[in-house]
Amino acid sequence: MSTAASTSSAFSRPTRSEGTTMPDLNWIDVESIGVEGKGWTDTDSFYDRFPARAQPLIPPGVWEHANHSAGLCAHFQTNASQIHARWSLDPDRPLAMGHMPATGVSGLDLYVHHPTLGYRFLACATPDQPNNESQLANLPDAVPRTYRLYLPLYNQLQKLEIAVEPQADLQPIAPRTEKPILYYGTSITQGGCAARPGMAFPSIIGRRIDRPHINLGFSGNGRCEPEVIDLIAELDPCIFVIDTVANMGAELVDQRMTNSVRQLRAARPDTPILLIESPAYDLPLRLTGQQIPRPTGNVALQNAYDSLIADGLTDLHYLPGPSLLGPDCEGAVDGTHPTDLGFMRMADAITPALQQILK
Amino acid sequence: MSTAASTSSAFSRPTRSEGTTMPDLNWIDVESIGVEGKGWTDTDSFYDRFPARAQPLIPPGVWEHANHSAGLCAHFQTNASQIHARWSLDPDRPLAMGHMPATGVSGLDLYVHHPTLGYRFLACATPDQPNNESQLANLPDAVPRTYRLYLPLYNQLQKLEIAVEPQADLQPIAPRTEKPILYYGTSITQGGCAARPGMAFPSIIGRRIDRPHINLGFSGNGRCEPEVIDLIAELDPCIFVIDTVANMGAELVDQRMTNSVRQLRAARPDTPILLIESPAYDLPLRLTGQQIPRPTGNVALQNAYDSLIADGLTDLHYLPGPSLLGPDCEGAVDGTHPTDLGFMRMADAITPALQQILK
Repeated sequence: MSTAASTSSAFSRPTRSEGTTMPDLNWIDVESIGVEGKGWTDTDSFYDRFPARAQPLIPPGVWEHANHSAGLCAHFQTNASQIHARWSLDPDRPLAMGHMPATGVSGLDLYVHHPTLGYRFLACATPDQPNNESQLANLPDAVPRTYRLYLPLYNQLQKLEIAVEPQADLQPIAPRTEKPILYYGTSITQGGCAARPGMAFPSIIGRRIDRPHINLGFSGNGRCEPEVIDLIAELDPCIFVIDTVANMGAELVDQRMTNSVRQLRAARPDTPILLIESPAYDLPLRLTGQQIPRPTGNVALQNAYDSLIADGLTDLHYLPGPSLLGPDCEGAVDGTHPTDLGFMRMADAITPALQQILK
Repeated sequence: MSTAASTSSAFSRPTRSEGTTMPDLNWIDVESIGVEGKGWTDTDSFYDRFPARAQPLIPPGVWEHANHSAGLCAHFQTNASQIHARWSLDPDRPLAMGHMPATGVSGLDLYVHHPTLGYRFLACATPDQPNNESQLANLPDAVPRTYRLYLPLYNQLQKLEIAVEPQADLQPIAPRTEKPILYYGTSITQGGCAARPGMAFPSIIGRRIDRPHINLGFSGNGRCEPEVIDLIAELDPCIFVIDTVANMGAELVDQRMTNSVRQLRAARPDTPILLIESPAYDLPLRLTGQQIPRPTGNVALQNAYDSLIADGLTDLHYLPGPSLLGPDCEGAVDGTHPTDLGFMRMADAITPALQQILK
C-alpha cells in the first residue's frame, strides 16, 4: 500500500511513536479495572463480545466482528492532571475505513463526569499504527474526577493500559451491575461510521439513560440466525433492542424475525423487546424526500410485529425508521452509515422510546 | 507504511480499481464544465484556490493549502440513470487523516436538486488510491435532473471527469455569477473534519442561501497576514466572513484584526464583514459546561470589533463562539474540529446571521 493511501493526522493531536514512552508512569492494564458492556466473561480475548465457545456455532462473519470492542468502556476515578493511554490493535486490520476515520475505527474516546451535566467529551486518541501511546488529558488542576473511556468500534483491542502522573491516585470503578440495554444489529449498531467511539448511538444513549449497555452490532452480519439468537438469549438485559433489518432484507425478516422474537421471549419472559426499522436513506427518500414505496425490509418488519401482536405477544415495541436519521438525508456518509450527526439524531429518536418502555 | 495503517472501505460503496474502466462512457473533463467557488481564473492548476502569482507573496503554509479544492463544486443537468466519476489526486498526499475519513479529505459528494426541497445528498465516492473511478448514481429512471458535485476538501484534484451512459445527455451548468459569500479562515473553514465534502459548514450554508460561495479556509494558516488580506481584497463578494481566531490566538488578533478589517473595507467600501469567534470547545467548557474564563482569542476578537465600531465602522457584524458548536461538546472529533454534527450546528447558527445581513 502506498504512502498516499495511508492515514495521517496532519492537524490532529499527536500520538507518541511506537517504541518511545513517557518516563515514570505506572501503567495499569484495563483488564484489571474491568470493562462494561461485555455479555460474557468466558471470552477468548478479554475484549471479545462473544464467548469462545460461540466460534464453531455461529457464521464466520459474525465471529470475525465479535472481537471488535464496540460498546465496551472502562470507568475510573483519578485526581491526576495527566492521563495517558497505550493500546495495541490487531496488526492485520486496517486502522481506518474509507468512510470512517481511524479515531472511530481504532481510537479511544475519554469522557469526564460532571456532577450535574453527566459525562462530557474530554479527548479522543488517534492511532497511526497498531501500537500507540497518547496523552489524553493535560488538565490545569488535579482534583478527583470520574472518567469513562470508550474503546475502538471496529478493531480488536489486544491490550490497553492507562497511566497517570506518579503522584496521582487512580481508582478503578467496577462495571455497573444493573441490567444492561442490549442492542443486536448491524454495522450501524456497531457504530459505523462514528468519528469517535463515544458517538455510536448506543453510547450516546448510554450517557442519557443511566444504565450499562451491550453492543452486539456485527457489521454486515446482523441476520438473526437461530444460533446467534440462542447466544443472545443467554443474557438477562433490561430490554432487547433488535436493529437487524438493514442486513436481512425482506425475505430473511419474513423467515426469521417472528421466531427470533419468540425465542428471546421464551428465554426471558419478562424482558421487553424493541424492534427498530432500518434507518438507511433509500433512493426514493434521497430523490423525492419521501419513502414511496416504503423499503421492503421495513414493511416485512412491520408485518412481523403486527403478526406477533395479533398472536398476543405483550411488551413488544416498534420504532419506525424514517424519523431515525432525519428526512433531509444529511445524517449519513454514504446514505446508509450514520455520521455523528446521524447518530445524534438516532439517539434523539430512540432515547425517549426506551425511557417510555423502561420507566 | 504497513497495510494495517492503510484506509479500507470494508463496507462502503466499491470504487473501481486503477487501470480498469467502464466501457462505452464518454468522459467529460469538469474543467470544460467549470467550477463554482474559485476566486481567480489565473491559477496554476485549475482547482487551485489562489492565483499562481500569490505563491511568492504569501506564507508557504497558506500556499500549500491553496491547492486543496475545498468549497469548489460543479453543476450539470442530465437525464442519465448512471453517473460515473473518475478523479486523480496528489499522489504525495495522504488520502485520509487520522480523524477525518478519505471520503471527506479526498472524496466526491454528489447532490441532486429537488424542485421544492433544494439540493439533497445522493452519493459519496470513496477514494482508495490517487486515481479512482466510481459509479456515483444508478437510478431507477432516466429523467432530467440537476446535480451539484462537491470536490475534495483536503487534497489537490489533478483531474476530474464525469460520464453518463451513452444514450443519455449531459449539459454543463455554468457557475453562477451572483456575488459569492466569501469565507476566510482555518482548518474548520476548510472543512476539517467533515465526513464528506458537502458537509463543510460553508457548503451546508450554500444549500440554504441560494448564492455561490468561496472557501478560503487554510488549515493551520488562517492568520490575516497583510499579503493574504491583499489577495482577498481583490475579490468582490456579497460579504466577507472572517473566521481565523483559532489559528491566530489573542496576540495575533490584537496585532492584525482591526487592520485586516480596515484593509477589506477600504477595498470594498459597501461590502459587509462578519467576524466569527472560534467555535472550538476549550477545556473549561469540556470540564464545567461553561467558558470561564472566556478564550483569550475570542476576547481579543471582541475587543477588535468593539474598537472598530467605536471608530464608526458600519456594516461590521459579530457572531459569538459558544453557540456555534453547541454547549454539549459532542460536535467535534477532537474538541476543535467539527464532525458533521458540529458543522450542521455551525450552519444552523451562521445561516440566520448571514440571512439577516444579506436581506
